[in-house]
Formats: sequence, C-alpha cells, structure tokens
Amino acid sequence: MFESADLEHKVGKDEYKREEPKLREALLNAQFDLGTLKKFPVLIVIGGVDGAGKGETVNLLNEWMDPRHIVTYAFGPPSDEEAARPPMWRFWRALPAQGKIGVFFGSWYTVPIVNRVLGHFSDNDLQKHLDDIFRHEKMLVDEGVLLLKFWFHLSKNQQRKRLKALEADPKTKWRVTKEDWRRFKVYDRFREISEHALRETSTAGAPWIVISGADARFRGLTAGRILLEALKKRVAEGAQKSKSVEAVPPMPQLDNLKLLRSLDMTQRLEKNRYQKLLEKYQGELNVLSRSKKVRKHSVILVFEGWDAGGKGSAIRRITSALDARQFHIVPIAAPTEEERAQPYLWRFWRHVPNLGGITIFDRSWYGRVLVERVEGFCSQADWMRAYSEINDFEEQLVRNGAIMFKFWLHVTKEEQLRRFKERQKTSFKRFKITEEDWRNRKKWPEYEAAVCDMVDRTSTDISPWTIVEAQDKPFARIKLLKTLVNRLGRL
Amino acid sequence: MFESADLEHKVGKDEYKREEPKLREALLNAQFDLGTLKKFPVLIVIGGVDGAGKGETVNLLNEWMDPRHIVTYAFGPPSDEEAARPPMWRFWRALPAQGKIGVFFGSWYTVPIVNRVLGHFSDNDLQKHLDDIFRHEKMLVDEGVLLLKFWFHLSKNQQRKRLKALEADPKTKWRVTKEDWRRFKVYDRFREISEHALRETSTAGAPWIVISGADARFRGLTAGRILLEALKKRVAEGAQKSKSVEAVPPMPQLDNLKLLRSLDMTQRLEKNRYQKLLEKYQGELNVLSRSKKVRKHSVILVFEGWDAGGKGSAIRRITSALDARQFHIVPIAAPTEEERAQPYLWRFWRHVPNLGGITIFDRSWYGRVLVERVEGFCSQADWMRAYSEINDFEEQLVRNGAIMFKFWLHVTKEEQLRRFKERQKTSFKRFKITEEDWRNRKKWPEYEAAVCDMVDRTSTDISPWTIVEAQDKPFARIKLLKTLVNRLGRL
Repeated sequence: MFESADLEHKVGKDEYKREEPKLREALLNAQFDLGTLKKFPVLIVIGGVDGAGKGETVNLLNEWMDPRHIVTYAFGPPSDEEAARPPMWRFWRALPAQGKIGVFFGSWYTVPIVNRVLGHFSDNDLQKHLDDIFRHEKMLVDEGVLLLKFWFHLSKNQQRKRLKALEADPKTKWRVTKEDWRRFKVYDRFREISEHALRETSTAGAPWIVISGADARFRGLTAGRILLEALKKRVAEGAQKSKSVEAVPPMPQLDNLKLLRSLDMTQRLEKNRYQKLLEKYQGELNVLSRSKKVRKHSVILVFEGWDAGGKGSAIRRITSALDARQFHIVPIAAPTEEERAQPYLWRFWRHVPNLGGITIFDRSWYGRVLVERVEGFCSQADWMRAYSEINDFEEQLVRNGAIMFKFWLHVTKEEQLRRFKERQKTSFKRFKITEEDWRNRKKWPEYEAAVCDMVDRTSTDISPWTIVEAQDKPFARIKLLKTLVNRLGRL
Repeated sequence: MFESADLEHKVGKDEYKREEPKLREALLNAQFDLGTLKKFPVLIVIGGVDGAGKGETVNLLNEWMDPRHIVTYAFGPPSDEEAARPPMWRFWRALPAQGKIGVFFGSWYTVPIVNRVLGHFSDNDLQKHLDDIFRHEKMLVDEGVLLLKFWFHLSKNQQRKRLKALEADPKTKWRVTKEDWRRFKVYDRFREISEHALRETSTAGAPWIVISGADARFRGLTAGRILLEALKKRVAEGAQKSKSVEAVPPMPQLDNLKLLRSLDMTQRLEKNRYQKLLEKYQGELNVLSRSKKVRKHSVILVFEGWDAGGKGSAIRRITSALDARQFHIVPIAAPTEEERAQPYLWRFWRHVPNLGGITIFDRSWYGRVLVERVEGFCSQADWMRAYSEINDFEEQLVRNGAIMFKFWLHVTKEEQLRRFKERQKTSFKRFKITEEDWRNRKKWPEYEAAVCDMVDRTSTDISPWTIVEAQDKPFARIKLLKTLVNRLGRL
C-alpha cells in the first residue's frame, strides 16, 4: 500500500502559493455548509510514521478552517474511568456531533499495531482487533459518519533524514526523542504490520488514504483537497446515510413465532410460596451483590417486554435487594437533542457501568429492532444491521467483564387488555394508559414477529435472553431473581 | 443541633403498619408530579453518624418510590479525571436533571468535616470550606434545585449499642469495620465539628434536618414525610425559582461607562510591524505552551466582545501558535435540552479542562450578564446574583491551578457598522449578518452599560479582564498575544 508514497512527491513553492488560498477558502465554505446542514459528523483518523507530519497537517487544517468547530484528540494512556470500561468507550465519548469535525490521533489503531510490533500480540490477536475495528467503522459509516483515514508515510530513508533534520534545528530538536529512534529501528516491522492493518481495514466506506509525508506542501495540499472533496460530495448528497446495506434481501420468514407461542403461560405461584421464595432469593442476591467475585465484574440488566408486562414492579423487587449506592437505573425514553446528533448506540455507551457497578436498563438499545422497526422510525437497512451492531456492543461489554442479563417479560394479548382496563379504573394518574399504549397494542402481530427475530438473532452464549412468562407477576419476579442468583452464584 | 435527636424517638409497629402504605402512595404520586412537571430537580444530601441508618433510609426511599427516577451516588476517592479538576466538578457531573431525584452520600461535607476531625484542617480551613458550601448551596437553591439535607444522628450510647448489635448478628456483622470503631473513638470530636458545620450551613433555603437514627421505623417515616411535604409544596408552587434575591435594590447607576469610553481607539499597528510582532509572539507562545511550568496548570481563555469585533480571527491567531492536540475550543451557542434541565453554570462546568489542557471559550458564562440581561432572557434577580456566582466559579478554577484570561474585544459603534456593511458585500455566506446582529446593535447603550458592570464586578486579581481596543485588528491580535505571553512567562 505504500509503494506510491515511497516515491518522491513535491509541490513547488509557487504552485503552493497559488493553490493554498483557493483551497483554504473552499474548505472554510465546505465546513460552513457542514455546520449549517448539521446532518452528519466528520471523523478524521490520523495514523502513520513518526516525523511524517501528522501533527503539522492537523495544525494546518485547524489553521485553514474554523478551529471552533474542530475537536482534536490525542489518546494517551487511558484514565482510570476509561480503563474500567471497554476500550472503545473513550472513543465513543470523544465522537464529534453532527455538523462538527473530530480528529483522532492514533485512535483504535494504536493498541493493535504497537502491540503486534512489540510482540505483545500474536497474529491472531491482531486479526481479532482488526475485525473489531472493521465492524466498528462499518457501523460508524452506516450511521452516517463521514470517516476519513489518513496515513502519513515516509520511506525508511526519508524517516532517517527527517529525524536528523529535526534534531539539527535547535527549534525542533525537542521533538525528537529516544523513543523515536527506538521506533525507527523497527521501521521494517512497523511498516509490514501497518501495511497489513491498513489493507484489512480499507473498505469502500472508509478507505485508508496514504499520503507521502516527506514534503510539507505536498502533504498539506493533498490532505486538504481530499477532505474538501469528501465534504463537498457528502453535503451535496444531502447527508443521507450510507446506502451500503439497503440492498439486503427481505428477511426470510422464519418460523420462530413458536418462541413465544410455545411458552407455558399458565405457570403461577401462590402467595405464601411467593413470599417465602422472594425473601430467599432477595437475601441471596443481596449477599451476592456484595461478594468480591461479583464486584470484580459489572452487571448489566436489560428489561424489555409488553406494555403493562410488569417491568417496573419487577425492577423494584430486584433493586430492593440491593444497596442504592451500587446500582443505577437508566430509563430509556426518547433520545435528547445531544443524543440525536450521535450514532444510535451512543446514548447507551454513555451509561456503560465501570467494574463493580450494576446498571439496569428499563428498555434499551433493543428499541431499534422493536418499536423503531415496527413503527418505521428507522429504515429496514438500519434495523437489519442493528442485530450485529448490538451483538458487537454486547460482546465488548462482556469481554470487559460485564455479566449480561436480558429479560423479555411476556404476557398474552388478553392479559394485557385486562391490565389496561384495570389501570383505567385506578385513580392513580401514573398508571394511566396512553394513546401510545393502545397504538402499540394494535400492532401486536408485528411486535410479536419483531420479538422473535430479536431473540433469535441476539441471544448468544455470552449474552442470552431470558423469556419470562409474566402472566402471573409473582411467578415472573421469582424467575427473574432466580436467574440472577443462579448466574451470579456460578461466577 | 442534636439535642432533640439525642432523645429517644420511636414509632410503634402498629402505627408504622398503618402509616407506611399511605406515605408510600403519597410519595409515589408526588414523584410522578415532579417528573411530569419537569421543572426542578430534587437533591437529597445525606450525612450523619455511622450506623444511624443512612443507607437503610435511602434504600427505603428507593423502595417506596420509583427507583427509575432516583440516582444515588456515594462519593469515594475521586477518579483521576476528577482529581485533575476543581473538587466541585464531580458533584456537578452527578447533579440530577429537572424532574429527577438525586441522592448524594457525604457529598461536599465529607472532606471538610473528616479533615477537621483528623486534624488535617485548621479551624480556618474548615471555615473556608463551609463558606464555599454555603455559597454553592445558595446558588443551587437560587437556580431552582429543591435541596434537602438529612443528618442521621445517634447519641454516643446509641451508636455503641448499634455497632454492637450489628456485630452480634451474623447477617450484618460484615457491616461493622475496624474503621467504624476507630471513628467511634472520636465521637465527641466528630459531634462537635459536625454540629458547627451544620449550624453554619443551615439556611432558610437549605436547612439541615436532623433525624434521630436509633429507631428504623421513626427515621424512615420522618425522612419520607419531610420529603413528601417538600415535594408537594414545591410542585404546588408551580416550580418557581427561589424568590430569595428578588428584593434586591435596583443597581446604583455607577459612572463606570468610562471604562469603555476612555479607551484610546486610535491605536493601530502597521502591516510590517504587525507581521514581525505576530511571528515573535506566536513563537514565544508556542514555546511557553510546551513548557513544563505552563503544563502544570490549565489555561482558560474567555472571549467576549461586540458582534464583528474580530473574536473568531483573533482566536485563530492564538490557536495557530498551538498544537491542535493541546487545546479545545468551546463555542457557546444556545443551550441544549440537557443543559436547559440543569443550573445555569452546568454547561460550562462540563468543559472545565484538566491540568495541562487549554480551553478557549468563544463567548461564555458572561452571556448571563450580557445578552440574557439585556434581552430579558432571565430575571434581574438571576443576573444580579450571577456576578458573585461567576466569581465563585472562577475562584474554584484558579484555586485548582487554572490561569484565567478574559478578553473583551471592543470596537466603536461606527466601526461595527462599517464591518457589517463590508460583510454584506462579501459573497461568503458564512459572513452574512443576521437579524440578531442588527437587533443587538440597536441596544448598544444597554450592552455598553452591561459590559461596564460586568468588568467592574468580575475583574479580580486572580481573574482580571483585559479590554482590547479592537478597532484595528492587527493591534488587537498583538495585544492579546502579548497579554498571554507576558502572563504565562511570569509563571
């Protein structure tokens, strides 16, 4: 991938003087359009060889454009808050919002490439990371992020010359460290592994752009022009999301409705037995929640279910066994303005607990493949790809030490109607049934299909769904508690 | 303050059985109203003696109410991100939004009380912290936060009994640590200092409520009832902000307009000299920004000024001397939905840099006493108290190692008109003049008075204003750079 960049590329002083003001003006205008349209963010990932002008080029872009709408991050060692969460968390929190430009130095490429070069990672480790990156970037692109990846390259000879030149000038001497020379010694290895990484992660939606870094004028004009063309094209397209997954064939009608229809909805618990079991399991959950082996993990509970399925009261039976200082509940309602300006999963990443914490999601990211699918709030392409995005997300959580529980609280259509009517009779306004509840109810069959698809496609070994027969609330609550206690007890 | 709580307070089993369901129901309803109204947040600060039932009571409130809208925080040792910012930062980030209930264990009282008990703080240190707390809480209350402070008390004898009882029960033995007994030994000292702290911070808007913790039924019902009454009262009042500062006398007309009118607006720099000085100061700023002594601090630049005063281009002359990885620019536009659900200063606290960082605010918290004052976006009481709130805020920043620069870019009314007209002639849409610009211009005298008041009331030794004669852009830019270089050079 570096063959062309190995060659000498130069831009003469006169040409630069002629071209730079035009480019600058055009970039400023394109950035203004980006900010006015406010429909997609731009993320520029910067990688490359030491001394190839990464920092200088980013500084130049900041000088050419309006720096007030560019945010640049260099990712050093993670803070302790970052280290207690999946590695991608720090990149999620730094993502630019729609209308803004973000620049990430190193980003998610640093850890795999550097560790492979130093021999800390095997080929397999590297490959696993590159696969993760591939899927992460695909998700960003599908979510509408304009993703540009610039790799600044120097041949070995050019790098030696460049480091020496920097050292010779008293003004720039400080920039060359022992570390730089140490890394220069492994140039060939670095080149080989980077080339592999770039090849594996160059996709139609997010190709790597290798820029020869030896000549400052050349690399500046090149990076600026590529950014300009990409910006102009995307603004002109009116900022639609990527079309890459639209050609997906319609989902085959699986005969998976049995998942729900074959449940034994007659299961009940009589009152005395319920009280006894409730006390037993709440006590066990309390002891477990304080145990060292559980506190090494984070615990994530996801609650989904039919309206009036009893989610709220079930959650209370769990939290009343816990200490309030230990858990957070995240009720998922309509996304806020800041959340709407970000990729879909951003608003859930915000709430990822650190190790030792318990987070309960009352509704969750599964809204994408339930209400958003059924009500048409997103396109088919969007919810179709959501299954694998969600699996990726949960895999990251679990790999980082999360114990995942996902509960679907199931009632029959008749039972829901009974509960709706009962609620209408109560005087407590907080139990009033809304228009939305009735609307959802009308689409029962569509929701049923969506639920079955969801369970089929996202129930995994590491993050399984538990379908809870919730026709009888006592039965449901005990099943929930038992599931928690059994799983946590096995840690 | 503890005399009444020293006495025995009990609630019988029967009374509790009768009262608890009623209280529970009423609390749930009040919480529902709070969430529906969504006009103010509730913050419950919890303090008191070990073993007095702090945790149990909070768990009980979570059980009685809907835990999905209560967030509980116990503040342990600060994370490294928190430690790199002013101490209040961690409390700001945990603040509940309007419609929610937040519970803070220990909170801002822990550090001063514990350190005074252990002898790490002098009486003076303690007093300084209590003064800060007093002002912080006053600000929260003025901003509409319903602030309740519960202190759970035990007499020395009760505490001994309680710790022994917990130890005797195998189920609760784990809860009593050596640390608890160590703290029990200094009961008298803890009591004396806490009493002092409570007295100093009990205000009309945020009084301490001391609750005898010896009897679980008594403390639960008491805390629940107080919360209920406070909630009901506030909801009934329609969630107005506190009126405490409305009776302020109208501001005396100071003859401070001279601040702006006596400036020498004829100062200019001719082109050659400007280019030379620009290079000189940008070079110096670049070296300083990388120096160890500057990187021990955070640097905060605030830019305010007339429309078309040249803020944007001045900021670019500064950032082009810096590395993009080192600074963040925060352009202040209308607050987002999440920001509107919080006290005024919350959206600036979000962006407080850690040590080593440089943050540039393009417009700032001074909007409160400029545009919001002049356009009537907030009440007179709101902007009147903003001066001291802002001074408190900046004092916290400086105490934590921030170097503050505040620039007012000043042009004459005639010069503004000239620039507006010039902009109207350009073809760059990003320079178009908006309705708002013309609207602001019409209120020039009001803005002029507001600017002079602002400088008068918020220019302090630790955080001075620099008024920049910006009639001539080159002159203004050099003055800015020189101010930065001189101050940072003196560190």
